[in-house]
Formats: sequence, C-alpha cells, structure tokens
Amino acid sequence: MFAGAQLSLYPMTDNFVDVIMSSLSAFDPYRDRLRIETDDISTLVVGPPEVLFPALRDFYVAAASTRHHVVLRATLSRGCPGEPDDPICSTSALANPSEPLAERQKAALAAVANAKTTSETARAQFSLYVMGAGDHMAEIMGCIDFLKSSGVFDRSKNFCSRLTGDAGPVFATLEQAFCRFGPPEGHVTVDLTVSANSPSTA
Amino acid sequence: MFAGAQLSLYPMTDNFVDVIMSSLSAFDPYRDRLRIETDDISTLVVGPPEVLFPALRDFYVAAASTRHHVVLRATLSRGCPGEPDDPICSTSALANPSEPLAERQKAALAAVANAKTTSETARAQFSLYVMGAGDHMAEIMGCIDFLKSSGVFDRSKNFCSRLTGDAGPVFATLEQAFCRFGPPEGHVTVDLTVSANSPSTA
Repeated sequence: MFAGAQLSLYPMTDNFVDVIMSSLSAFDPYRDRLRIETDDISTLVVGPPEVLFPALRDFYVAAASTRHHVVLRATLSRGCPGEPDDPICSTSALANPSEPLAERQKAALAAVANAKTTSETARAQFSLYVMGAGDHMAEIMGCIDFLKSSGVFDRSKNFCSRLTGDAGPVFATLEQAFCRFGPPEGHVTVDLTVSANSPSTA
Repeated sequence: MFAGAQLSLYPMTDNFVDVIMSSLSAFDPYRDRLRIETDDISTLVVGPPEVLFPALRDFYVAAASTRHHVVLRATLSRGCPGEPDDPICSTSALANPSEPLAERQKAALAAVANAKTTSETARAQFSLYVMGAGDHMAEIMGCIDFLKSSGVFDRSKNFCSRLTGDAGPVFATLEQAFCRFGPPEGHVTVDLTVSANSPSTA
C-alpha cells in the first residue's frame, strides 16, 4: 500500500516564507514515521493515515496560531494502483472490508469523540473520492451520514462537504472519512482545504 | 448534467483582498454563461467546461499579472450523481463514448495545438479522478499519455501530474483532460493547483 499527501500552505501575508518555515517544525515529532520531499508547488508526505492526519493537524495549528489568514491544502491518496507498495505506509487504521457500513460509522464516531481539542478553529472543505469497482456513491453517502453526526459538520456544498470546529475533532473526522469508507484495498483520495483567520468570517 | 468548480485564489501578500477583487473582473465576459456563488472558503462556478476553463485561465492570468506569488486552486467536477441536472451546464465538449482512446487523444492534442498564448507562465499540478463502473485506471493512463505529448508536460509526481508552460496551452490541456477521458455520462473530477511567481522557482 502507498499512502500520503501532496500538501501546501498558503499564508496570505508578505511574510509567507517565514510562516511556512516556522510552521514546518510541527512535523518534527512525526519525521521518523514519514518521508517528506518538497518542491515549489507542494510537499509530498508519505506515511500511514494514523501519522499523516495528526501531523497535518499540528502543522495547521502552528500556521493558524500566527494569526495570519492561512490556508492548508492537501491532495491525499491511499491505494493508488499506479504507486508502489512502501513499508513506511503499513497501517492498521483502515476498516475491515467485511464490516457493514453502520459498524464503520459507529467506530468513526467513537474515534472523533476521543479526539483532543487544540487552541485553533478549523474551517475545512473536502471531497472524498472512491475509485474502482463497487458502489462508490454508497460509500460516499455512508461517509456523509457519518459526517452529519460528527459534531463538526457545517454543511454540504456542491462537490464537497464543509466541517467547522476545533481542529482536533475536525482532523479526526477527516482521518475517519479517509480510513473507514471505500475498500481498504481500494483507491481512495481526498481533496482538502482548511482555512484559518479569514477576514470573510469576521 | 451538472458541472463546475469550487475555486479559490491565494495571493501571498498583505493586500490579498485587493488582488482577489481585482482579478475577479476577468470573469465578466463569461458571467452570462456561468452561475457564481462565493463564501469564505471558495467560489462556486457552475457551467460547461468550454466556458469554465477559459474563464479560469483569464482569472489566473489576471492574478499572475499582479506579479505577486499567487496560487489558483480548483476542485472541478462533472456528472456527479449527487448533483441535479442544470441547463446552464449543457455542453458538446465531452468526448463521444464510442470513440477509441487513440482518437480522443488525437482530438485533445489538436485542441491544445490551437490554444492561443497569453502573457503568463502557469505551473500546474493536478489529479484526474474517474469514478463508477469501467476501468478507471485505463482512462487515467490514457490521459497521462496525452499529457506527455501535450507540449506542456513537466513531470509525474506521486498522486498528480505537473504541467509547465504558457497559461494558454496549459489550461487547454487541463480542459481536454477533463472532457475527453472518463465516460461523458460518468463522474469525473479534477483537483487542480496553478502557481505563479513563486520565489522557489526563481
């Protein structure tokens, strides 16, 4: 299995380089369990979802705490048939394929209820894509049902769902959406945007 | 059919609001053929691909011409089963389902060769997702073959492909990727990032 994300941080300030560089230290506690490569558009982070999502959360919280308007963007993927297996991605976080949707929704809600809170609000918008054989819309609708009970559901929009709440439960909800819907051997991707300190919400 | 995009512009400057507001006038020539709604995270643009991509190109060129480091982000979708049919999305730009992959690649290359150039370079990174029944990886690999011959292919990355070149052929290539791969009645999405004036490329 291969899993990870292409992520970018957009700080809406002249000092964007400083905000990006200082926020990157949030990855330090996770670096031994991730492979990280950067170019001028995005940073590739390869690793299992249970490491990736907490690292993304801490990166977001570090950037948001600068009080600048910042946006974290990530293209997340697991199980793409075009990517090689990588031992660093070994995970036990994906749902059992024989488990019915209702059981997976229940386990996802329990994980979100246990999420620790942070000092920052996260306004997130994301799309979950489930590819290959099987009823991809059933999995997506099952995921949306879970989102609506997550405590951080904001609203459905065209092409995506919005979550608003403390960054702890918001990133936990995103992790559960990524891990528990779509088959564990399938190709699942998430297109994610998380916004902090936007003047439009003031 | 329902088609459109959730898009956001991220100018890395203290004057980000001015850059966004001034660039939005690039949509004016297209407004009668699009439906546009804005919130604090993104702007929904509903309409057919042959209007959407030129409008995105002009919006990007307007923002890039400010010489600030700006990033255009879009979540594009066509044919999502969860969205209602909308007459404004009527299009003849989608490939004929009975046409073999090689014919569609040839037509896509001809369209890119006819694209007018602009005054700006676009560094784009995108993922194409094809959902539902059928061999989604065959369509994606067929699209990647087209990209490699497009004249603006930069390189493959994990989870995405990079295009670099004048914004004219780059956005034309993106439009062809979106329209000619995956069945016309299918659910196809693109996760797109286009970067201008990054100091990391200097």
